[in-house]
Amino acid sequence: MKNNVIIIGAGPAGCTTAIYTARAGLKTCVFGAIERSNTYRAHVVENFFGRNEALKGANLMTEGKAQAEKFGAKFTDKEIVDIKKNSNDLFEIVDSERQKHEARAVVICSGLGFKPTGIKNEQQLTGKGISCCVNCDGFFFKGKKIAVIGNTNFAGEEALQLLTYSPNVTLLSHGNDFKFDPKIKSALDENGIQQLKTSRISEFAGENKLEEILFSDGAKMNFEGAFLALGIASASDFANKLGIMRAGQQNTFIEINSRTGETNVAGVFAAGDCTGGNAQAIKSAGEGCNAGISVIKFLKGLKAYADYC
Amino acid sequence: MKNNVIIIGAGPAGCTTAIYTARAGLKTCVFGAIERSNTYRAHVVENFFGRNEALKGANLMTEGKAQAEKFGAKFTDKEIVDIKKNSNDLFEIVDSERQKHEARAVVICSGLGFKPTGIKNEQQLTGKGISCCVNCDGFFFKGKKIAVIGNTNFAGEEALQLLTYSPNVTLLSHGNDFKFDPKIKSALDENGIQQLKTSRISEFAGENKLEEILFSDGAKMNFEGAFLALGIASASDFANKLGIMRAGQQNTFIEINSRTGETNVAGVFAAGDCTGGNAQAIKSAGEGCNAGISVIKFLKGLKAYADYC
Repeated sequence: MKNNVIIIGAGPAGCTTAIYTARAGLKTCVFGAIERSNTYRAHVVENFFGRNEALKGANLMTEGKAQAEKFGAKFTDKEIVDIKKNSNDLFEIVDSERQKHEARAVVICSGLGFKPTGIKNEQQLTGKGISCCVNCDGFFFKGKKIAVIGNTNFAGEEALQLLTYSPNVTLLSHGNDFKFDPKIKSALDENGIQQLKTSRISEFAGENKLEEILFSDGAKMNFEGAFLALGIASASDFANKLGIMRAGQQNTFIEINSRTGETNVAGVFAAGDCTGGNAQAIKSAGEGCNAGISVIKFLKGLKAYADYC
Repeated sequence: MKNNVIIIGAGPAGCTTAIYTARAGLKTCVFGAIERSNTYRAHVVENFFGRNEALKGANLMTEGKAQAEKFGAKFTDKEIVDIKKNSNDLFEIVDSERQKHEARAVVICSGLGFKPTGIKNEQQLTGKGISCCVNCDGFFFKGKKIAVIGNTNFAGEEALQLLTYSPNVTLLSHGNDFKFDPKIKSALDENGIQQLKTSRISEFAGENKLEEILFSDGAKMNFEGAFLALGIASASDFANKLGIMRAGQQNTFIEINSRTGETNVAGVFAAGDCTGGNAQAIKSAGEGCNAGISVIKFLKGLKAYADYC
């Protein structure tokens, strides 16, 4: 499916971006659900300029989504499991049914979604056997014995992509049940990727590099590499896959030109909580406006930001 | 009169700042009138996230002002004639009645400084073929024959953005020479946008909608739409008086940290059109939110920007 722009996330930032791009006639697809935005869950919003009432967050989001749809934006709640730039210079997004979607521009509005694992030595061994991006680091694990930690479609897709580098890939469920969509499940089975239902991982062990994974039930397994893929892909996962610069003390945010929403990668923009700053609906919506206008200009080959002078 | 914060300007940026500061219990005074904001004059606003209706700009502004007042903000339309920092480390504002007003923090949201053209029937046909914002109104001119009136980069950029909606766009110089930066000039040429050096426009003509543009040399041309893009307002006098750094090629904007609204002068913040960027109500409101939160932190002695990590 071809789009002009794909927006990842359906909070105030994503919906506002969509209002602007769809209204400008760009074929716009939003991946996400308003129900998962923090604003949707707000019981009362009383500081959103222009809504002088005790407004439910759910009502604000429902109305904002309807606005974007009115101008032609399409919403889908399909889960994104991979994103990259393909040889046609288009962004290629893979959903959990392994269907591909193309777009000329991408706007990341996926919210905070920062997920530290809490597993002992995660930070100490990151870059020393522990990674969170197959596209980025799979190359360093050629032929090695590798674990992928996670129980969802995102983890499944990461495991499948690791086969490019090694045949020895094992999924570890980290205390959860595996939840794969049918196409990912059958691809995992066909490719002989072991799916181990394990207890929670308590520790990564090794002298200067990962050697062992320790589980809360006392079990141990040897691995030379481990990829973290817990939950659904978040902004930091998309940033990894696309080579986007990060910001914030723990690199949890996407770095943007905050007037334009531009990232360091041409054609990729971001807005809202995933870029840091005040976590407020009106601020996210304002940034969505900026990103939307930048996409419109980008697809017309204009510089994103004109100073009007 | 002593205030915690004085906000200069009552557009979406100023009102949103006031909503945040007043709601936080700060004594807040807004100098300005919603009736003078560009948003107030917008006949229809349909891209303001969360208002899925054919909303009059005047209604949006009236509701936003009522919100700020509900939390205790005071509005006054007194004209400000001077501003400085006094020996008590307070900002001292003098109105046109020579009355002094003090505040611990100042937020400048004074907008671009809209300049009427003086062309006959400009006001009568505004919203009926005449507009001053492509992002806002371009949508209403799909496929039509459109003029952009102006001779600067702003006009050039407006003309380029109009191509989203119509291929039939002509720049009219309104008695001036065109002054485009090279990139805008070449984009105009590449896109075949005609740049007509004309005499001054004397009149917009038409029955209930724009039909003809009349020039002072007696020439006439037919157009279905005309976008006004004459220069921009000159630099804010407040910035001069307070020693605030400017931005933009002609120093017409106030330079801020666009995540916090901070200027280079402690205690002075800015938001909205006077800081540059996209002239959109939702973007200005988002910046007002940032400035408001920064004022709250400033008056509590906290650093304005926390990265949440």
